[in-house]
Amino acid sequence: MTWDVLNIIGTIAFAISGAIVAMREDYDILGVQVLGFTTAFGGSTIRNLLIGIPIENIWQQGDLFIVVFLTIIVIFILPNQWLQYWDKWGFLFDAMGLASFAMQGALSAVQIGAPLSAVLVAATLTGSGGGMIRDVFAGRKPMIFREEIYALWATLGGLMIGLGFIQGPWSTGALFVAIVILRMLSVHFKWRLPQHSVS
Amino acid sequence: MTWDVLNIIGTIAFAISGAIVAMREDYDILGVQVLGFTTAFGGSTIRNLLIGIPIENIWQQGDLFIVVFLTIIVIFILPNQWLQYWDKWGFLFDAMGLASFAMQGALSAVQIGAPLSAVLVAATLTGSGGGMIRDVFAGRKPMIFREEIYALWATLGGLMIGLGFIQGPWSTGALFVAIVILRMLSVHFKWRLPQHSVS
Amino acid sequence: MTWDVLNIIGTIAFAISGAIVAMREDYDILGVQVLGFTTAFGGSTIRNLLIGIPIENIWQQGDLFIVVFLTIIVIFILPNQWLQYWDKWGFLFDAMGLASFAMQGALSAVQIGAPLSAVLVAATLTGSGGGMIRDVFAGRKPMIFREEIYALWATLGGLMIGLGFIQGPWSTGALFVAIVILRMLSVHFKWRLPQHSVS
Repeated sequence: MTWDVLNIIGTIAFAISGAIVAMREDYDILGVQVLGFTTAFGGSTIRNLLIGIPIENIWQQGDLFIVVFLTIIVIFILPNQWLQYWDKWGFLFDAMGLASFAMQGALSAVQIGAPLSAVLVAATLTGSGGGMIRDVFAGRKPMIFREEIYALWATLGGLMIGLGFIQGPWSTGALFVAIVILRMLSVHFKWRLPQHSVS
Repeated sequence: MTWDVLNIIGTIAFAISGAIVAMREDYDILGVQVLGFTTAFGGSTIRNLLIGIPIENIWQQGDLFIVVFLTIIVIFILPNQWLQYWDKWGFLFDAMGLASFAMQGALSAVQIGAPLSAVLVAATLTGSGGGMIRDVFAGRKPMIFREEIYALWATLGGLMIGLGFIQGPWSTGALFVAIVILRMLSVHFKWRLPQHSVS
Repeated sequence: MTWDVLNIIGTIAFAISGAIVAMREDYDILGVQVLGFTTAFGGSTIRNLLIGIPIENIWQQGDLFIVVFLTIIVIFILPNQWLQYWDKWGFLFDAMGLASFAMQGALSAVQIGAPLSAVLVAATLTGSGGGMIRDVFAGRKPMIFREEIYALWATLGGLMIGLGFIQGPWSTGALFVAIVILRMLSVHFKWRLPQHSVS
């Protein structure tokens, strides 16, 4: 149940995020659909691949496919003045995808009895995987590791789950909201992690 | 049988297409081979991954490996005046790969009893996956969603198969030829899908 | 045993190589970790995927995860004057990753009874896969097929293994050292394979 809700939220959020990037890159309507779908289900695909769930299971989500399709159509036809607010909203949807996929990745790793180090890796890679796929397929340099703190919140969410602090819907919901808020605060206050540039 | 023919045509067509892109990007002979192989078998790999066919099955195609290897060698040593005609031929081979992989993706999804929405996604992603992998590995911005209509023909082919209109070799061959012709007409007449650019 | 040693050497070498590229691209500390991990385990993931080893097996390497994590931390905090020597060292670690993953890819293909052509492809793609993933995720044009001879040494290593010349730890070690030296000589003497540029 928790799993399903997280999966649906994350999938739709990444679909919107992928569609917006595709529109910025001048993709046509089908390209917007494909980049939306790839971003939305790329996250699930990486997660399934990494933790051994058969990938063909994604085909059983026929209803979710239709929801994603219609969502992307709506994004595509929204008037431009609405889209001016997208920078903020784009960050929000991306943060929701980050939070839900990170938590799913961590929960899956815990379920198969992986060690804590693997739970952290699973949370980080499934949380940030959708965004990396989106940027790579859009021909963009992936920005998520050079700008405001992003994947760290996925890692910390994985830590909370890996240590067993998250049990039941209330703490799950609280962790989801916390990750989204921390990500939005990072953007707002331009929080950054240390860099060590090599010339 | 139909499956095998489509697989061989698509694999060779994408191998040639990948080799030509690699030569344009100044890859050396081994790079031309690797990009040719990645483009050729990347399509099959994505398809197998998405529909649950074990990926290691591709290793049983030893003969196809040799055919692809020799085909790419021939492309590499063709004299330059022949290659001046490649722009047109490159589009043709790419269109053949698009058609055959789209149809294979759709047939596979039908075989495992996926809903129609999933058949469309499978056709679109397996048809356009080879080209996306090729462009990403060549360090190019994927162009297939910004220029003349490309993946839509994969989607429509998937629709025909998903609705059960395609039965037996004659209708299969007709659909293959139709997708190739529609793609070539798109290039020739510069047919485009609507775009909605966000500044 | 041989397998384990090759896997550990290759994983750490590619982790260092990915971390250095990430630092050059101004990634933050988490980005350096993620690109290091992706490069290190991306090679294993491609290999597992291509030869049918369940991918979730990588989660059983909890100790290797910790070693990789600490290695990348050390690379990140090394003072700049040390890093001036990195160009040379970067090539060395990359060469070690190339050699060990190429040999693992070939050994795996032999184990599942693949034909010689498939052994060559497995060696080439698993050897060069880590570097391709690293460059793609760093938003770089993959250079390994345009500059000094790289993947050819993976292919030749695969040939030696596929023909059954490599048996036991001594010949395995000798092949590893030979591939590393040939790669370093390629860089030093700027050995290149033929190119055929299409304007």
